[in-house]
Amino acid sequence: MTLYEAYAGELAEAIASGLFRPGDRLPSVREACRQRGISPVTVFKAYYLLEADGLIRVAPRSGYYVNPKPSDHRLPEPKPSSPKPGGIRVDTSDLVYDIHASLRQRSGVLLGSPFIDPTLFPLDRLRQSLVGAMRRLDPWSTVDDLPPGNRNLKRQILKRYLMHGTKLAESEIVLTHGAMPALHLCLAAVTKPGDAVVIESPTFYVALEALQRRSLKAIEVATDAREGIDLHRLAKVLENRRPAACWLMTNFQNPLGSLMPDRKKRDLVALLARHGVPLIEDDVYGELYQGDTAPASAKSFDRVGLVMHCTSFSKTLAPGYRVGWTAAGRFAAQVERLKLMMQLTGTIPTQAAIAAYLQDGGYEPHLRRLRRSLADQQAAMVSAVHRHFPDGTRVSLPQGGYFIWLELPKQVNAVDLFWAASAQGVSIAPGPIFSARGEFRNCIRLNTGQLWSPKVEDAVVRIGRLVARQMPRSSASTH
Amino acid sequence: MTLYEAYAGELAEAIASGLFRPGDRLPSVREACRQRGISPVTVFKAYYLLEADGLIRVAPRSGYYVNPKPSDHRLPEPKPSSPKPGGIRVDTSDLVYDIHASLRQRSGVLLGSPFIDPTLFPLDRLRQSLVGAMRRLDPWSTVDDLPPGNRNLKRQILKRYLMHGTKLAESEIVLTHGAMPALHLCLAAVTKPGDAVVIESPTFYVALEALQRRSLKAIEVATDAREGIDLHRLAKVLENRRPAACWLMTNFQNPLGSLMPDRKKRDLVALLARHGVPLIEDDVYGELYQGDTAPASAKSFDRVGLVMHCTSFSKTLAPGYRVGWTAAGRFAAQVERLKLMMQLTGTIPTQAAIAAYLQDGGYEPHLRRLRRSLADQQAAMVSAVHRHFPDGTRVSLPQGGYFIWLELPKQVNAVDLFWAASAQGVSIAPGPIFSARGEFRNCIRLNTGQLWSPKVEDAVVRIGRLVARQMPRSSASTH
Repeated sequence: MTLYEAYAGELAEAIASGLFRPGDRLPSVREACRQRGISPVTVFKAYYLLEADGLIRVAPRSGYYVNPKPSDHRLPEPKPSSPKPGGIRVDTSDLVYDIHASLRQRSGVLLGSPFIDPTLFPLDRLRQSLVGAMRRLDPWSTVDDLPPGNRNLKRQILKRYLMHGTKLAESEIVLTHGAMPALHLCLAAVTKPGDAVVIESPTFYVALEALQRRSLKAIEVATDAREGIDLHRLAKVLENRRPAACWLMTNFQNPLGSLMPDRKKRDLVALLARHGVPLIEDDVYGELYQGDTAPASAKSFDRVGLVMHCTSFSKTLAPGYRVGWTAAGRFAAQVERLKLMMQLTGTIPTQAAIAAYLQDGGYEPHLRRLRRSLADQQAAMVSAVHRHFPDGTRVSLPQGGYFIWLELPKQVNAVDLFWAASAQGVSIAPGPIFSARGEFRNCIRLNTGQLWSPKVEDAVVRIGRLVARQMPRSSASTH
Repeated sequence: MTLYEAYAGELAEAIASGLFRPGDRLPSVREACRQRGISPVTVFKAYYLLEADGLIRVAPRSGYYVNPKPSDHRLPEPKPSSPKPGGIRVDTSDLVYDIHASLRQRSGVLLGSPFIDPTLFPLDRLRQSLVGAMRRLDPWSTVDDLPPGNRNLKRQILKRYLMHGTKLAESEIVLTHGAMPALHLCLAAVTKPGDAVVIESPTFYVALEALQRRSLKAIEVATDAREGIDLHRLAKVLENRRPAACWLMTNFQNPLGSLMPDRKKRDLVALLARHGVPLIEDDVYGELYQGDTAPASAKSFDRVGLVMHCTSFSKTLAPGYRVGWTAAGRFAAQVERLKLMMQLTGTIPTQAAIAAYLQDGGYEPHLRRLRRSLADQQAAMVSAVHRHFPDGTRVSLPQGGYFIWLELPKQVNAVDLFWAASAQGVSIAPGPIFSARGEFRNCIRLNTGQLWSPKVEDAVVRIGRLVARQMPRSSASTH
């Protein structure tokens, strides 16, 4: 046995025995050298061995951390939701704005944030692409691209679809100022005031706001934290009512993290095609999968042009660049026209920058790194929740994205929890903002996109304690 | 008398005698030297003298042109509009999209365009600002600025308001993706479906589309091509109906080019304050005034926070950068919240670039140059219209912006004219797109923002001929 194998074996034992616990930081290479009188190469090799075995992980610029074990997961997953049937007028609360305001304190721990840690983005490479693209920019393109947008970017986007096996025409792509306007434009293209729209329960609050603004009724359909919307119930809704559209997140749904299996997506698309109902597919998290295989989009099963696939580079590459799009099927021309009247066009320089970045081949390696980081961060946070939250908590275990959904014991009020956590410098997203009826009052969404650190772990401990404090004494026990 | 004075006198005489006519190009400096055996300095000095006398103008990278004389203006100005009273549901036509499609041919003459010639923008300086700003950008700002936007830019904007004598709070400024989303957000903040909104007649087609999308009724009020909306009629509307808002362009209205005198703006603001009706003030052309004095905004007279001043850098500096804002008075917080749900935020890199550009002091010199160019281009086109359009034509004479409005003889159908001109590679904007009822069928808007050239003059000649062709033989005479 070599020296590094011996050192790795020693550490593996310490992890197995619980001396090092999930989320703990191993000694840095320098520390290990000093403490044990061994060379850096020996430490690196040992750590590499442990990493290959899945026992530890590297956090860039932060250190080596012990991975959670699946057997550590003592809390169950959330149950599928059971929203009241029938359409209702949406009434959104101001709470969303309070949460966004709470995110503006850098010193806080932003577990209520919709964004990941910005240092996970390749900001330097992007800046180089922006500078290069501006140098090559034809003055007339600033007028030519109003309104259709950068053609090279469209080409790069079409290439990515093709890599995933989906062949689309350039005319189907409408470039927008991020995914959010794409979603709004698609909704405007297929609905008129008074129509009903199917949404998940819980759902992304922007969908609720959009429905309210356009005087649309919401039909909430039961949704499972693992596999997404319930197709049997959706089929019933389609038979009994005539919704103008469905607005769904097929991959790593916000807030549940649910991933609709690909065969279920195929069934969904076939079901909607039978009823002639358009699907607004919000797929902004689809690239952030764990493991080796990209999940499909519902769009990839669309044969009749009813699926409007909306996404962006905001979650994966550059939130501030505001570059998104929709592949809007048979509605593309109408969406393009609405865009002309609502926002004229996207931003030319940042579109050109992202087109150049994609063309230079930087995106795939970046995505691979990002996916690994997010998977590690999620594992660490899930493990911390299992250790620090009281019995009666349920927690989702998404296969991608950067949100986990917690169903807390019935007695817990998530809005009270939000304010109590805010007072301690920790933000969370309370359940009621994800519901047309203000339901999910004992649920919260946590962001796992922040770099894992003792400070973040401490924030999880604090929330766990605040939850326990809201429960009757007898039932508040943690392991 | 020096040599250059003699040469200048000779040319002045040739202009007075009609040998050189308005819009004609003088010999280039090189040509004059060769033809007359004089030195370049002599020619430059002579041309400078003529320019100082207002007889000729310099078009950058194009040459020296003879200015029109006011006495050349034989056609009268348009009469104030007289729209039907009462509110109506808006029904916009697809024609707007046909026009935009016609603008995508670079080889054409884009007199139907809403944009100026892109070479009039300081693209190199802006690029330098963008590169510099990106170098200094804090990674966290990409998250911090979502959604409020770049604080330095807000500061620069507040400074500009202050220079114009208007003191605003930072909290009143909402940065948006160009002026268009600002207008839509302001409208959404103060109206609900079924409400009535006062607009000018004719009006910018985006206002019509916005009203239609939100199921709002339009109340069109008579508007004069010189001084804007008729305040007496507006007062009647305010007394008899309860409009939820007014949406007006106070400075260089699109399409008329009208400029509301500052005292009239003060009266307008006072009138609306008495009735508690908010004003959505679209002021995207306000910086493009002729002469020495900037026109005020209605906002500058606002004491109660009812005016939402919407504008951008898209008409004056960088259309593709998509940086606009509203100073939204008492509605600012609400508009900011709507923005969060509709578009999240503006584009961070281009906001930072424009902030840097403003801070470096480049904007004022650029604006001075741009105003001079636009004034010269307008003079040349107005002169050409007077020379090449048949009797019975009326043409506006705006004091800024880059549109002129033509009321053609009654028999002329502007939509037919649009298609006929398109077939000859010339685009124009026909009147009906500016009306909720499809009126102004004998009117067109021409863009004077293209660099003046024989090709542009030829386009004016062609349109004039097409107009004459639509008239009965007896009445179609030009000078």
